[in-house]
Amino acid sequence: MFFIDRMSSTPVYRQLEDQIRSAILKGDLKHGTRMASSRTLARELGLSRPTVVQVLDALQSEGYLEARQGDGTYVAHDIPKALPAFYPGAAKQGKDDGGKPHLSRMGSLLQAMPVDLDAARYTAFLPNSPAFDAFPHDIWRKCWANRGRGGGIADMGYGDPAGYLPLRRCIAQYLGLHRGDACDPGQIIITSGAHAAFSLAALILADPGDGIWLESPGPVTVRNLFKGLGLNVIDVASDSDGMMVADGMDRAPDARLAFAMPSRQHPLGTTLSLPRRLALLAWAQSRDAWIIEDDYDSEFRYAGRPLPSIRSIDSAGRVLYVGTFSKALYPAIRVGYLVLPPSLVGAFRRLSGLVARSVSLEMQHALAQFIDNGHFVTHLRRMRELYAERGAAFFDLARIELGERLEFNAPASGMNALGWLPPGIDDRTIHAAVERAGIKSYPLSDYATAALGRGALLLGFTGVPANRMAEPMRRMRDAIDGNGADIALDQRLS
Amino acid sequence: MFFIDRMSSTPVYRQLEDQIRSAILKGDLKHGTRMASSRTLARELGLSRPTVVQVLDALQSEGYLEARQGDGTYVAHDIPKALPAFYPGAAKQGKDDGGKPHLSRMGSLLQAMPVDLDAARYTAFLPNSPAFDAFPHDIWRKCWANRGRGGGIADMGYGDPAGYLPLRRCIAQYLGLHRGDACDPGQIIITSGAHAAFSLAALILADPGDGIWLESPGPVTVRNLFKGLGLNVIDVASDSDGMMVADGMDRAPDARLAFAMPSRQHPLGTTLSLPRRLALLAWAQSRDAWIIEDDYDSEFRYAGRPLPSIRSIDSAGRVLYVGTFSKALYPAIRVGYLVLPPSLVGAFRRLSGLVARSVSLEMQHALAQFIDNGHFVTHLRRMRELYAERGAAFFDLARIELGERLEFNAPASGMNALGWLPPGIDDRTIHAAVERAGIKSYPLSDYATAALGRGALLLGFTGVPANRMAEPMRRMRDAIDGNGADIALDQRLS
Repeated sequence: MFFIDRMSSTPVYRQLEDQIRSAILKGDLKHGTRMASSRTLARELGLSRPTVVQVLDALQSEGYLEARQGDGTYVAHDIPKALPAFYPGAAKQGKDDGGKPHLSRMGSLLQAMPVDLDAARYTAFLPNSPAFDAFPHDIWRKCWANRGRGGGIADMGYGDPAGYLPLRRCIAQYLGLHRGDACDPGQIIITSGAHAAFSLAALILADPGDGIWLESPGPVTVRNLFKGLGLNVIDVASDSDGMMVADGMDRAPDARLAFAMPSRQHPLGTTLSLPRRLALLAWAQSRDAWIIEDDYDSEFRYAGRPLPSIRSIDSAGRVLYVGTFSKALYPAIRVGYLVLPPSLVGAFRRLSGLVARSVSLEMQHALAQFIDNGHFVTHLRRMRELYAERGAAFFDLARIELGERLEFNAPASGMNALGWLPPGIDDRTIHAAVERAGIKSYPLSDYATAALGRGALLLGFTGVPANRMAEPMRRMRDAIDGNGADIALDQRLS
Repeated sequence: MFFIDRMSSTPVYRQLEDQIRSAILKGDLKHGTRMASSRTLARELGLSRPTVVQVLDALQSEGYLEARQGDGTYVAHDIPKALPAFYPGAAKQGKDDGGKPHLSRMGSLLQAMPVDLDAARYTAFLPNSPAFDAFPHDIWRKCWANRGRGGGIADMGYGDPAGYLPLRRCIAQYLGLHRGDACDPGQIIITSGAHAAFSLAALILADPGDGIWLESPGPVTVRNLFKGLGLNVIDVASDSDGMMVADGMDRAPDARLAFAMPSRQHPLGTTLSLPRRLALLAWAQSRDAWIIEDDYDSEFRYAGRPLPSIRSIDSAGRVLYVGTFSKALYPAIRVGYLVLPPSLVGAFRRLSGLVARSVSLEMQHALAQFIDNGHFVTHLRRMRELYAERGAAFFDLARIELGERLEFNAPASGMNALGWLPPGIDDRTIHAAVERAGIKSYPLSDYATAALGRGALLLGFTGVPANRMAEPMRRMRDAIDGNGADIALDQRLS
């Protein structure tokens, strides 16, 4: 009944143990069955008797076997008679078995969602890619090392669910001095990035089915997140002044939330005008609704100065301001934050305590040091200059190499730009061709819920050094030309 | 109308800018109003003209003012006529304004929840406190430092939403070798701790209102988490064999989830028997339900070896196994993980990608090194020995110093023990007295949804060196004696 494989890397006692356990679970050994004695088993299997005794003892302590005084060992009487089909090991494979698991509505939505799980691959012109090559690794390492030395016992526990207070102080100070928007550290909740902040906000402020305004075209992952959480995402139109608040009020005046990207709309790159900001605030105040302000890469403005946030003119406490270090530093850092109206701090702190408490103390400590010693502001200034240079190089090269294949308007801020295709050319087709050539872009159509008048590709200009842009740019040109897009060569400017 | 305070730390240009902006937002300056010229303003306020010009330009770029050709500067015509009452700055205070914000059902539940946000304070006998004093800080620092040197550009992006693959490999290997439960790294999702894992599971597997089995007495924060997420928490009875599965099937056979702590029930310390494990699996399989297996401090077993997990005998793929490094290393690390049935990997990876992606790459890298170099297993072995010693000292001292005030049964595993009060003594009263004496415990009544036959305090025995236990133990004794608990001295054993 049992078989010991002496060539196997599994120890012999483990082999025997697994086989007896399986036999019981499969019903081959029924409850009440008398086991062979340890002496017999040892002889039959060529094992030492202590090894067999050890196995029987272990299975006894697990409850599979029971000893009866002076009468040997039996399969335990309380093993259920009718066992379902247990096949130990069957569920351990890493592959999806193709079955349809019973999920929540949210789980089913997620399961069906076409999420690009590989989007993070580093390639030329990947949107939102910081200049990893220009990151101050040495300084960052020193901030880590300091933490290593200072690791105090008091800091090793769960800590405040809102986050490490010195880091919250640094962020409050940064926002006050460099974003013109003072807040109290008590209003800040540290999260593992902007999306984690959006999800806390959605859970606390909206019930499944409640409406949230979101622009179309707008950020795909944010749309998927809110849909995944069961919210009713209302497509709000957007023009050169940003979100058309009047359109939102027409479509869903009773939405609970509005998602706003006032500094720089993603992916269109527009700025929300002052009248629209005021109208949005007035709507939220009159409807008891909330505004999630995604201060999307306001740090990188190349012309003029950043516009003040909506939060800075919100007297009614309707704005939840979300910031992230994914763009300003790098995505893998997984740190973002919320600045909350005071009335919401209690609920967010509780949810963070129960669910999130999300960032390791080490990381919060290192980041606080990095900011406090002035490195963060220095890094932002350096990156602003570098990104302006890279942008200039990118748009020059694009004009020369791509011509009218992709037409860019150099943006006043941010890390990405839309390259507009000639009318009538499908951006998803071109996107696929460019991707086959090893360059990751996003087609504008993917950001929109309705067909667009003109297609475009979103490309990032900040991640690649200027002197390494020409080659991928030409690869992109060849990919566009070679893949069925009917763009006449004589349209090229150069 | 405007006033410049030269003693203020706010720069004069910022003062003027804020005052003009406020006047417009408050309606003191209505749209269409002609502003005084920069020359006039400069003279009246005693500022240089370039300063005033800079301010007017900034407000123009923000949209508050507009220049009319050859006719000076006006308040912008498109500022809405009827502004709500905007008072910039009013929402910036860190205190709750006492208002009742409009929240989701989950938000309202959370807002009302009595969560002990200070629970993490380090004191003697705080439950679940690892031996921070015996943590290998030097080795841990080296794992960090290695990361500092190796920081590659490829690792700085978003990465796999399931977590850093080398860390998942290390965890899979650890579970296979030391927990007797092999899995594929592809089944693992890295989370920011066990609670984050529970919350992903609840969101993906249960809709609001769906039932989840949870023992009473049982873990308070887990109960609050599931209630906060809108689940219907079903109290299931528990005896010395752990969760009474038959009771769950009586009360709510159609629950979607069962929360199981088979290794060691919190706070009772019992082990789930094999027949109950099999019954739980059979129920989940027949009802298409899921089992969340919280492998609560299975790492610290002092007698015998750890029982195999439920997951290891789950052939139907109904078990989500949750582990954490909060106990094995320290809470502030914020790393835990899920081992999923293959059919659930897709949905969890998507939700993690949208919401969580929660642990910084640096931390995952350092932890992978720590495990891979064998430090984790060594640390666990050292802690098992140390905790066994500390436990022995604790229970000896408790017998001598506390006698029948608190009666402990030394547990075979874990980091905490229940000290049972004499019948009729209210544990919340004693808990408060002990807390006033500076010692953090948890009263058993707080873990239960119904009145208990006998009260107890949960205390941790792992966080304090043995030679520093006597003083807080005596403080506890005095606190119990001095605070109205009618425990006769002659009941003391010593």
